[in-house]
Amino acid sequence: MIHSAPALLTDLYELTMAQAYFDEGLNDSAVFSLFVRRMPSRRNYLLACGLDDVLAFLESLHFDDEALDYLRSLKHFSEQFLEHLQQLRFTGDVYALAEGTPVFSNEPILEVVAPLVEAQLVESLVMNQVHLQTLLASKAARIVEAAKGREVVDFAMRRMHGTDAALKGARAFHIAGVDATSNVAAGQAYGIRVSGTMAHSYIQAHDDELSAFQAFARQYPGTVLLVDTYDTLAGVRNVIQLAKELGPAFDVHAIRLDSGDLRALSVDARRLLDEAGLHSVRIFASGGLDEDSIAALVAARAPIDGFGVGTDMGVSGDAPSLDISYKLVEYAGQDRIKLSPGKSLLPGRKQIFRVEREGVADHDVLARHDEVPPGRPLLQRVMSGGTRLPAGRVSLEEARRHARNELRRLAPSIRSITPAEPPYRVDVSERLQQDLESAVRHVTSASRM
Amino acid sequence: MIHSAPALLTDLYELTMAQAYFDEGLNDSAVFSLFVRRMPSRRNYLLACGLDDVLAFLESLHFDDEALDYLRSLKHFSEQFLEHLQQLRFTGDVYALAEGTPVFSNEPILEVVAPLVEAQLVESLVMNQVHLQTLLASKAARIVEAAKGREVVDFAMRRMHGTDAALKGARAFHIAGVDATSNVAAGQAYGIRVSGTMAHSYIQAHDDELSAFQAFARQYPGTVLLVDTYDTLAGVRNVIQLAKELGPAFDVHAIRLDSGDLRALSVDARRLLDEAGLHSVRIFASGGLDEDSIAALVAARAPIDGFGVGTDMGVSGDAPSLDISYKLVEYAGQDRIKLSPGKSLLPGRKQIFRVEREGVADHDVLARHDEVPPGRPLLQRVMSGGTRLPAGRVSLEEARRHARNELRRLAPSIRSITPAEPPYRVDVSERLQQDLESAVRHVTSASRM
Repeated sequence: MIHSAPALLTDLYELTMAQAYFDEGLNDSAVFSLFVRRMPSRRNYLLACGLDDVLAFLESLHFDDEALDYLRSLKHFSEQFLEHLQQLRFTGDVYALAEGTPVFSNEPILEVVAPLVEAQLVESLVMNQVHLQTLLASKAARIVEAAKGREVVDFAMRRMHGTDAALKGARAFHIAGVDATSNVAAGQAYGIRVSGTMAHSYIQAHDDELSAFQAFARQYPGTVLLVDTYDTLAGVRNVIQLAKELGPAFDVHAIRLDSGDLRALSVDARRLLDEAGLHSVRIFASGGLDEDSIAALVAARAPIDGFGVGTDMGVSGDAPSLDISYKLVEYAGQDRIKLSPGKSLLPGRKQIFRVEREGVADHDVLARHDEVPPGRPLLQRVMSGGTRLPAGRVSLEEARRHARNELRRLAPSIRSITPAEPPYRVDVSERLQQDLESAVRHVTSASRM
Repeated sequence: MIHSAPALLTDLYELTMAQAYFDEGLNDSAVFSLFVRRMPSRRNYLLACGLDDVLAFLESLHFDDEALDYLRSLKHFSEQFLEHLQQLRFTGDVYALAEGTPVFSNEPILEVVAPLVEAQLVESLVMNQVHLQTLLASKAARIVEAAKGREVVDFAMRRMHGTDAALKGARAFHIAGVDATSNVAAGQAYGIRVSGTMAHSYIQAHDDELSAFQAFARQYPGTVLLVDTYDTLAGVRNVIQLAKELGPAFDVHAIRLDSGDLRALSVDARRLLDEAGLHSVRIFASGGLDEDSIAALVAARAPIDGFGVGTDMGVSGDAPSLDISYKLVEYAGQDRIKLSPGKSLLPGRKQIFRVEREGVADHDVLARHDEVPPGRPLLQRVMSGGTRLPAGRVSLEEARRHARNELRRLAPSIRSITPAEPPYRVDVSERLQQDLESAVRHVTSASRM
């Protein structure tokens, strides 16, 4: 709706700091690390997501005339700096986890290595996109896990936080294993399978439910009929009546239950359908579902073949934000840290090594990037000198496959929706620990000066 | 980022239903009502927001060739229907609350009166925008209330759900009374005051904190210095050192505390600053704040002059979604309802009458639109025949003023951040209650047929 130049989708302080760096001639190479400090209490892992949009943003970063005119109007910025911004493109390197990689607290999801001004300016949008998409992919992976192979469809668009979340969320859900989306724009943008049949309004617009079913089934062979507008089991009986009327021409794929006690109603609906010989009509459930209610329905053997999941997945209801940070860890070849209470940092460029035993991830080692402990390194260079490398051009289907493969390599207790005891183990390498202590000594002695 | 035609920002079922209506010749006038069924447990009221974007969307609604080609590729839609979509524009009327009006459960935020196909097609995006903006304005109003006149600045962009949420959220926060935003794009798009100075990375990029303060203060007279990178009170002493060095040239507006025990640190910082004669240096606090922690700081008389509020406001952390619905309540001149458990409906076009005593809202009466009980009617016609009326063209500053005036008319217990006992009273008019009963009888007898 309102258009804003992406370069201005940033916090003002990025620009005021950038101008100060520019004036002070502080533009050596900087390393910023993006990571989640503490996991939400009900997450055993997060699923890294959002890299593709980050790289697209970095590749296209520029300040257009409209943006520069607006910045000029603020009277904070010198003409020299605005000229610098006009020329500015992102020329740095990015090291990142492939989208769909499980990641744990304090592990970098990505690291940016670039001249300080550039690396600083991109902070807010890089965080915004990785936060959103990692948050939603992580939540969706739990829903898919709870559904134990039953179909999961994204119904969330209407209650997600705006249009960008709805679009990027559908993409993140797809990577996490969700089967289809109701969001047509996401189908158009990403080629994700779209799904959807009828709402209560369609039933209400007709004189009675049976007439609505008759008209819709005629129009859409293989459709799904929503049965709870007035009374769920009466709705099921109308579907059975329709089958009697149509005989062999009856072609309804499923009914959808959207309210009430889904377990009891699914049992009764299944029985009614089976008694009428309609064994092939599937039962689809929706209405305020989350991973807990889905797991409970699955555990209770409710005869439900698929789930439409909306709001709770769309806003990550139990944990709507992540404690994500983008922090300077190295500047001009020197380690950098901070010591704010509860917000300390591990210095320098890093690598994550995942140590597996018989194909199952046992623990990770967080190390300096040039260490070679045992284990599989997870951070890859995806952009060099502002240009994407092949590792930064991964199709959506590849990302989805990668997520499935990586999730299979987690122990069942970690993949589970219940808190793992013990949680997944992340060790800090001896060298990284020593470098932190040395940086703390350095800062402490400097601040005593 | 990825561009998608707004007309496709919808759920697939809106399009499948629309085609069925089209084929069945069901295109009489429909009334859809948008309302929140149940309030989140910690909300005494919601602040209606998002109308401006809804009306902009309705005015510009059209299906372009790219959208039609994509829909054609799905093989669900006939050429006749796609031709109908190509011609389709929104020609209906909209009745709505002015942005910034407090609203309660089951009260319409807006009602759409339009040919059935049009009114159905716009559902998903209308919900998406009103949900997001009402959610965020309602949360921000609580933060502003808790701050009791102290400055509140939006720092949320990086952890909000995508770019659209960041932009529309800054607008919603402004309407709710937030004083400024860090989001530069929101400044550009809406003219909202932008604010921001430095992050920890600026301090870290320098050899020590004092050098960083010296450089930044030279560059930006009247700035804010962040003091908690290594040790908050040592940071305050560095500010005092800077004042000694600069003498009369010292011009720092404030310090910012971003971690630790903000009450204790603000007391100590205030004392240190005052002892150094720096009475005019203000104290600004940020770091994981919400309305409860702000209220606690204010109640404890912490000497804090302003708050930077991020994540919790940006995602409405304690209630990240609303139970919002867009429901058919009238079609072809007949009342429509549904009876799904816990999701029943009041039929027909409505009006909200706010009854005030001595300038304070006492209760609302929810009635048919043509009733005339006592009280001030709140829903206004804002669009007619697809064109905005003057009541639908309200500037952002007018909306902010309207919110302030309307919030002042709520009783302190309702405006409060603690749950009101008793909650605000909303009566249903006798006629509306009778019409509901009559519609229930009608539906029940039809479903027995």
